[in-house]
Amino acid sequence: MDTATTTKLGKGERTRRRIVERAAPVFNQRGFAGASMNELVAATGLEKGGIYNHFGSKEALAIEALDYSVSLLVDRFTRALESPEHAADRLAALIDAFADLEGHPDVPGGCPVANTALESDDTNPELCTHARTAMDSWHRLIGSIVKTGEQRGELRADTDPYALATVITATLEGALMLSRLMQKPAHMHRAAAHLKAHVDSLRAGA
Amino acid sequence: MDTATTTKLGKGERTRRRIVERAAPVFNQRGFAGASMNELVAATGLEKGGIYNHFGSKEALAIEALDYSVSLLVDRFTRALESPEHAADRLAALIDAFADLEGHPDVPGGCPVANTALESDDTNPELCTHARTAMDSWHRLIGSIVKTGEQRGELRADTDPYALATVITATLEGALMLSRLMQKPAHMHRAAAHLKAHVDSLRAGA
Repeated sequence: MDTATTTKLGKGERTRRRIVERAAPVFNQRGFAGASMNELVAATGLEKGGIYNHFGSKEALAIEALDYSVSLLVDRFTRALESPEHAADRLAALIDAFADLEGHPDVPGGCPVANTALESDDTNPELCTHARTAMDSWHRLIGSIVKTGEQRGELRADTDPYALATVITATLEGALMLSRLMQKPAHMHRAAAHLKAHVDSLRAGA
Repeated sequence: MDTATTTKLGKGERTRRRIVERAAPVFNQRGFAGASMNELVAATGLEKGGIYNHFGSKEALAIEALDYSVSLLVDRFTRALESPEHAADRLAALIDAFADLEGHPDVPGGCPVANTALESDDTNPELCTHARTAMDSWHRLIGSIVKTGEQRGELRADTDPYALATVITATLEGALMLSRLMQKPAHMHRAAAHLKAHVDSLRAGA
């Protein structure tokens, strides 16, 4: 958030934003069920009553924390797409930007969308809906890059945008989980290299 | 467990086994932190004191439930490898057996190893160690199939066993997460098709 925006926010808004920013890593590292109110109090520096004043429930805070974490991902991917123009280069830039989450996360604790998905798919429908919306936007972003690349003759005309979006997403998400579980960044590096080679093989005339 | 084994177990052992079998889906669907003692009581049909008599703590029960869920995965992959002999066919059989977890899980709630990994990597070191051991066995299984395939001249000699194990694992785990989050089995089907095409491209002379 830039300074101009900050100064326009009232005190209540600034407090609310600070709570969300500080709660996000707690939820991302410990999960919705695992994040205790004591940990949220310690992280935000507010009393329990203060947190409830602003959000009403732990679930409402978790949803805003997820949306905030997702907004940082969106910023990351937007920056990655600033320079490259060829569809294959744009896909490679997204792959690198995601791979960089291993080692340089915006919010510690792995991918907030996958974490929420795996924890909440059986338990917490509203959190899950927000995770699904975020995943859907990412999928549509990849799909639109592929379609534009086909129209411009940059990618092979038989490239399936849906299949490629699935393969890129599944491989990156799985590799982030694997790197963290095994404490070996090599998993992410190998997965990113595989995906970039695959994308390269889809260049028209490659 | 076959009947012969069952009859050899004492009553305490049978009760213990029944608790583990019934607790496994609760932990897999709700997570370690999310599984309440009330839900475990309801699922196992024992009182809280009865559960503690057998396991001492919720964490000890969660660890046995994870090991049990992993043993069902090991059975699944062992069956898949009974017939195929060529390394590429053996890898394809493992990919299909994993892909079949979407739709026909042994324990409802997704992959128990990934679920544990994402929940416990920041919070619960002992559970995480058991997940890591399971993942390590799976990786070594794929690695040994690739190495044998290279020695027999079935796979291209420049196939990297580690890279292939990472790509197969990451893609399948990510696709299972994605299929469940988006409630679209197509994600798993696309991921499995991509991986089998990739494995086919590694056949010697392909």
